[in-house]
Amino acid sequence: MSEHTLQAKLITEFIGTFFLSLTICTAAVMGTAGEMAPFAIGSVLMAMIYAGGHVSGAHYNPAVTVSVYLRGACDRSEVAPYILTQVSAGVIAAIVTANLLMSDTDVTPLEMELIPALTAELLFTFALAYVILHVATSEATEGNQYFGAAIAFVVLAGALTVGGISGASFNPAVSTSLLVTGALEPADAWIHLVPQIAGGFIAAYAYKVTTA
Amino acid sequence: MSEHTLQAKLITEFIGTFFLSLTICTAAVMGTAGEMAPFAIGSVLMAMIYAGGHVSGAHYNPAVTVSVYLRGACDRSEVAPYILTQVSAGVIAAIVTANLLMSDTDVTPLEMELIPALTAELLFTFALAYVILHVATSEATEGNQYFGAAIAFVVLAGALTVGGISGASFNPAVSTSLLVTGALEPADAWIHLVPQIAGGFIAAYAYKVTTA
Amino acid sequence: MSEHTLQAKLITEFIGTFFLSLTICTAAVMGTAGEMAPFAIGSVLMAMIYAGGHVSGAHYNPAVTVSVYLRGACDRSEVAPYILTQVSAGVIAAIVTANLLMSDTDVTPLEMELIPALTAELLFTFALAYVILHVATSEATEGNQYFGAAIAFVVLAGALTVGGISGASFNPAVSTSLLVTGALEPADAWIHLVPQIAGGFIAAYAYKVTTA
Amino acid sequence: MSEHTLQAKLITEFIGTFFLSLTICTAAVMGTAGEMAPFAIGSVLMAMIYAGGHVSGAHYNPAVTVSVYLRGACDRSEVAPYILTQVSAGVIAAIVTANLLMSDTDVTPLEMELIPALTAELLFTFALAYVILHVATSEATEGNQYFGAAIAFVVLAGALTVGGISGASFNPAVSTSLLVTGALEPADAWIHLVPQIAGGFIAAYAYKVTTA
Repeated sequence: MSEHTLQAKLITEFIGTFFLSLTICTAAVMGTAGEMAPFAIGSVLMAMIYAGGHVSGAHYNPAVTVSVYLRGACDRSEVAPYILTQVSAGVIAAIVTANLLMSDTDVTPLEMELIPALTAELLFTFALAYVILHVATSEATEGNQYFGAAIAFVVLAGALTVGGISGASFNPAVSTSLLVTGALEPADAWIHLVPQIAGGFIAAYAYKVTTA
Repeated sequence: MSEHTLQAKLITEFIGTFFLSLTICTAAVMGTAGEMAPFAIGSVLMAMIYAGGHVSGAHYNPAVTVSVYLRGACDRSEVAPYILTQVSAGVIAAIVTANLLMSDTDVTPLEMELIPALTAELLFTFALAYVILHVATSEATEGNQYFGAAIAFVVLAGALTVGGISGASFNPAVSTSLLVTGALEPADAWIHLVPQIAGGFIAAYAYKVTTA
Repeated sequence: MSEHTLQAKLITEFIGTFFLSLTICTAAVMGTAGEMAPFAIGSVLMAMIYAGGHVSGAHYNPAVTVSVYLRGACDRSEVAPYILTQVSAGVIAAIVTANLLMSDTDVTPLEMELIPALTAELLFTFALAYVILHVATSEATEGNQYFGAAIAFVVLAGALTVGGISGASFNPAVSTSLLVTGALEPADAWIHLVPQIAGGFIAAYAYKVTTA
Repeated sequence: MSEHTLQAKLITEFIGTFFLSLTICTAAVMGTAGEMAPFAIGSVLMAMIYAGGHVSGAHYNPAVTVSVYLRGACDRSEVAPYILTQVSAGVIAAIVTANLLMSDTDVTPLEMELIPALTAELLFTFALAYVILHVATSEATEGNQYFGAAIAFVVLAGALTVGGISGASFNPAVSTSLLVTGALEPADAWIHLVPQIAGGFIAAYAYKVTTA
């Protein structure tokens, strides 16, 4: 709830989500970073959080926006514009990757088993939103400087741990980006989106009971 | 000794220990992260420490709770509930990993040589508790923001250095989790538990002599 | 705009750019760090930023100096001396690497495809300068301690993600260093320099619209 | 120049140098961490710096003690006891590694070329001491929280970049530890020790000219 204009916030959300999605599409989907891709993803996320946190809150993720809104730290009027901007950034990042950076590379769709993939996306999206609510919206930790590291490292942990199980998206905007590249098949999209939104909801509840 | 309710603290300890144990069971025991598993473990620990530190102190480890209690920074009445919660979280994390995330994977029990494994668990549990006492309970470093990084990085160092020697648990709740998955055989459990508790005791003593 | 003498600032810029370039020439071009080279590069950059930030602002990069100048956080009179010093440091680092550290190693020139390489250098130099303007020149984040981590991690992300596409320089002084080692061919130099400077310009504009 | 007793400082120096040396002997010399060894080394160093910095200054390195003394931030009377303690810790760490942790492993001596090895140890010990003087002894950065990260990351960069050239010690106590394990041959010891001490001296001079 900073004093910046909505336009400044949306451009900030666009830039952050664009670079997060572009790094995932290039380093992980197209495979330029090999088994180091999780480090590229966590790193760009950390940098973009520290760059944009003071402007937009640095959500870069519709599940996070929902969770932050439920916890009462995001204006209702900003939820839809944030999510639209994040998803647009994911789409454009996929287009830039596929057409400008990596036009010669074929994409193999993710193969997911249903229960493990749902579990993986639910658990780590929950963990991501839970960490964010505690380090970026809590009065008790206000003014801390570790918020970007904490958030980026939970994504790094998830990408290393369940990358081979679900693709480790934890983020509907990133999943949209994966859809556009062809890494996520439309029929499988709900395996990402449903547990991601559920994870954001449960995290808002967990935040309440752990700050009682 | 924050002002949160015991229930809030215990839920926080449960969530943190659950994700630490789940990451160890999935990334390291089941091997999803290959040789990068130590990074997944250190990362999720750092994130959970920053998320929960202001609520419960973020022990996530019975040897740490013992050491913090001996140093005088944890109420006696909280020791047993903390440890029970941590161990329960380890057990449930192992069950979730084995049944929901990785039901098709066989687990090979750790093969440990006695002296090296005892030495490894003793030294790095000591180092972990020694670092925690200095960065999270000392008045001289009060208000610092690096506590989560310092604690996570000593675990990362230990996991990389002695992971092949003892399994690099340094944590009775994690060792319980390893027992449930079958990575640690019941007859070998003492090779983890005895030096871990001893490490916590010695660290409390070392803290005293280094802050004289 | 610290109170140090211009000489102190230039020596600081020299040392920082020298070690950044030397690490890139040795770890990446000569290949001593293998696929871990991006971590060596990000690490030395972070250390040098924290060491020199309070003296010179720790640009270590002509594109950054241009961007910081456009944003109004660097005196006009310092732009040329900074850039000359940075480029000199890059040249000398290449000479030290080639003659003292790695005299027996042959260098294979980078093979770049035009559009992907231009895109990669443009996007990640933009990201680097955008992050720097927000974490190191913004009043809203003044006094923060994460500036070095944020800046180093965006370079790490870029090196992991587009290292195989453009060489991941994002820095005219580093590109000069690559020219001297033979890793960058003179005819290809513009593929680095033009998008790098353009990225610095666009970042200054993006900074303005995201802080409105 | 904290208010702790000399005994508390020396125990702190012992513990920090012991774990740094033990990690190097086990992870790198004995090879338990494979090509990840530099991360283990940087991580344990960071943790030990944050744990002990407020007590002893966390030198853990005779070249650093010399450099800090020359810069005027360490009492003359403490120089000899610090160095003796650091070297003792290195020796004991080597003995623990060789006899308790890794008794079955043979050690292959480092093969170094003279000029590259001298250059590597000189440059990175200089960089290490230069970073330390700026982040841990400068009034301009007093109270910062990034000192441990900055120092650890320059060692990580050096270990990744010149580990294959000189062994990447940058520390006479660590070199003594390498001597005891047999990784460094007595006739080669000067290739480590001379440039390390020289690097500490030059860093003290560089600190002066960059803070004018």
